[in-house]
Amino acid sequence: MNKYQHIREEAYAANMQLPQLGLVLFTFGNVSAADHALGVFAIKPSGVPYEALSPANMVIVDFDGNTVEGSMRPSSDTKTHAVLYKHWNKIGGIVHTHSTYATAWAQAVRDIPIFGTTHADYNTVDIPCAPPMNDEMIKGNYEHETGFQILNCFAEKKLNYEEVEMVLVGNHAPFTWGKNAGKAVHNSAVLEFIAKTSLLTEQINPAAPRLKDALKQKHYERKHGPDSYYGQ
Amino acid sequence: MNKYQHIREEAYAANMQLPQLGLVLFTFGNVSAADHALGVFAIKPSGVPYEALSPANMVIVDFDGNTVEGSMRPSSDTKTHAVLYKHWNKIGGIVHTHSTYATAWAQAVRDIPIFGTTHADYNTVDIPCAPPMNDEMIKGNYEHETGFQILNCFAEKKLNYEEVEMVLVGNHAPFTWGKNAGKAVHNSAVLEFIAKTSLLTEQINPAAPRLKDALKQKHYERKHGPDSYYGQ
Amino acid sequence: MNKYQHIREEAYAANMQLPQLGLVLFTFGNVSAADHALGVFAIKPSGVPYEALSPANMVIVDFDGNTVEGSMRPSSDTKTHAVLYKHWNKIGGIVHTHSTYATAWAQAVRDIPIFGTTHADYNTVDIPCAPPMNDEMIKGNYEHETGFQILNCFAEKKLNYEEVEMVLVGNHAPFTWGKNAGKAVHNSAVLEFIAKTSLLTEQINPAAPRLKDALKQKHYERKHGPDSYYGQ
Amino acid sequence: MNKYQHIREEAYAANMQLPQLGLVLFTFGNVSAADHALGVFAIKPSGVPYEALSPANMVIVDFDGNTVEGSMRPSSDTKTHAVLYKHWNKIGGIVHTHSTYATAWAQAVRDIPIFGTTHADYNTVDIPCAPPMNDEMIKGNYEHETGFQILNCFAEKKLNYEEVEMVLVGNHAPFTWGKNAGKAVHNSAVLEFIAKTSLLTEQINPAAPRLKDALKQKHYERKHGPDSYYGQ
Repeated sequence: MNKYQHIREEAYAANMQLPQLGLVLFTFGNVSAADHALGVFAIKPSGVPYEALSPANMVIVDFDGNTVEGSMRPSSDTKTHAVLYKHWNKIGGIVHTHSTYATAWAQAVRDIPIFGTTHADYNTVDIPCAPPMNDEMIKGNYEHETGFQILNCFAEKKLNYEEVEMVLVGNHAPFTWGKNAGKAVHNSAVLEFIAKTSLLTEQINPAAPRLKDALKQKHYERKHGPDSYYGQ
Repeated sequence: MNKYQHIREEAYAANMQLPQLGLVLFTFGNVSAADHALGVFAIKPSGVPYEALSPANMVIVDFDGNTVEGSMRPSSDTKTHAVLYKHWNKIGGIVHTHSTYATAWAQAVRDIPIFGTTHADYNTVDIPCAPPMNDEMIKGNYEHETGFQILNCFAEKKLNYEEVEMVLVGNHAPFTWGKNAGKAVHNSAVLEFIAKTSLLTEQINPAAPRLKDALKQKHYERKHGPDSYYGQ
Repeated sequence: MNKYQHIREEAYAANMQLPQLGLVLFTFGNVSAADHALGVFAIKPSGVPYEALSPANMVIVDFDGNTVEGSMRPSSDTKTHAVLYKHWNKIGGIVHTHSTYATAWAQAVRDIPIFGTTHADYNTVDIPCAPPMNDEMIKGNYEHETGFQILNCFAEKKLNYEEVEMVLVGNHAPFTWGKNAGKAVHNSAVLEFIAKTSLLTEQINPAAPRLKDALKQKHYERKHGPDSYYGQ
Repeated sequence: MNKYQHIREEAYAANMQLPQLGLVLFTFGNVSAADHALGVFAIKPSGVPYEALSPANMVIVDFDGNTVEGSMRPSSDTKTHAVLYKHWNKIGGIVHTHSTYATAWAQAVRDIPIFGTTHADYNTVDIPCAPPMNDEMIKGNYEHETGFQILNCFAEKKLNYEEVEMVLVGNHAPFTWGKNAGKAVHNSAVLEFIAKTSLLTEQINPAAPRLKDALKQKHYERKHGPDSYYGQ
């Protein structure tokens, strides 16, 4: 029995959800699942079609981005995952996709405005878009720096990664995370929904106001507050 | 034999139509079915995935929002359903979704203009968007107040809930209803179609005129008037 | 053996294609198939879901709109079909849908500009939008007048119904036709494609020019001209 | 054993992917697979529905556009394929579709701006739109001239067909190619994705900047450079 079997299976199952949810074309996406006690995560091998995936071919990587187990090359975005796990120790899963509408907002280099209660069911702020990196960072350890670009964006905007579980990387595409890989995939689908409805909202009413504070708080609290009453 | 079995089955079947019609992501929607003689309705349990639903786990609630039978927590929107059933005694089913285009109009806080005969096949007015509530109502008994926000919107606009079976709640999302749960689901799909085609109409022609009165009357009457000739 | 069996089967098969091609929501569409020698056509019964259709429940109607055979009420748009068959004796099938993008152009009361060769593969003109009728016509024999509105639109624009097999009825939705019911359905799907790509073309380039004459002729002729070389 | 069996099967399999990837309506597309040593390519027969295709009914054509083997007429776009194979001897597959968003950019006669890293994963330039031909070329050997229009567009813009494997033909639709037919189909799906997200990017931010040079190089090189690390 492989000691990483639990995260191999978690990462495999979560990766397989991406095409089912319509979030990826070909291999444009990857999911990882971490075990913080063991200090590693399982991640999709690079460029392998979803139908060829199995728990066994997930690659095990440590939080410095070194492969610990596995004969295949890990996702080209592996170092971004590693940086986030190293600094945010309460997240157990990370997803990167090029889902259509979230990618379009990232390419437009705009935060996604909070227009409705669906958005507030997940967080109470505009979904942040980290700015493109400077040229030195891009030419250097690019995927590693992408992780820091996300960390810096959250630090500057004073956002809490346990409350805001999604980000756009400017000119690139979204990353989402959560307590486990399944929740991170859930967040990717929600982000795509918010990205689409926010664009439509602006098309219907270019002067659409942001959601008022009372509604932001109400919807967030009924799902996530101490007196939450959503779910079982 | 459970005395609420008929509405349990009606609510279950109608809930299961929502994902089939593409109206919900995850658990973003709920349907209820009422029996006015018994003074109760059956509604989806909160946060439970559609594939885990059964007639047995629908929750039975009275028109004041109290759970009458069932071990699970009812939908977080239950009190809105209760208020509508209590005041509108000819409706037998209610649906709430976050369907993409209807939600975008709600987030844009705009009534949906009547541009075509498809719309007039269902009603002869712009589909109303109830304004967001004031902060006291939001912080108070929110879902209960949402019901009154809908009632007040219909009262102010002098709309008849038997003719106009759909509403947008500003910044939030749509509610629809009908003589039974199946008709309410039908109306949700129609509303999503109208919401999408009305946006496209404005994009094709920003000066598109509203439907003329004679066409409004003709199409509504051929489906709903005393001399209707649509259907069997 | 029913003497209308051939058109019953043709109309049935063509009706069943509409949901498969994504052209209808619920019962928002109907197809008929005519036999000009017999002076009748078979048409979908009104308001009956597609899954309940069969060749046997198609309704047989003459070119004045009178039911010849069948116990169900024919489509509410039957008289429009009858007028077109009566005046255009080379068409064997007619389709009416409320397909999303074609309906949006009809609601916008605009002809669809010819922007590309896909359009020219079918005809060489903007797809005409017949204006809404005057109030007397609407209040009178509405569906009958709809047929004349289409005939008049073609007469005024000097269009040939054998070359242009599609029209928008202003504020309402499209009609298409062809040598048989299957070709008419094919044309409905093509119209929806043209309606969508033409809107996108204007969004990408509001000053997009219409297709030049040489390309219009080339593409139309290679499919329909005396020296056509498309197909087998 | 047919001496062209390998390209018959390659062309057949690639053609069958087009409807699965949502890139074609009816028969609006065709794929060919070439064997440069034999000086021929296998291409879809004209106007034949995808469900009626087989390796055996692919048509074998030489690089001057003459049919070498096959009883059916080849795709009406065959001469365009022939010209490209004759002049670009490292491509083994070509695809032509009328995919929705790429066709809309072609109809708008605009290059597709490079806004994001997904685009740069494939090439580092705006996707070129060849201008419509002059009338003499259209009235003459049209499909043959279409090939030269593409060659000339690449020559004028100094583009390398091994780096940029896609083009729009103004007012018409896209062509893509690659080392084999499967890669050419892959490129058609990627182009459609880029065409859609680029339009959405402009809608979200009309002043969206093009991707900076460092990001163009980084993403292209990590997939295609000498030190590439994408894939296995």
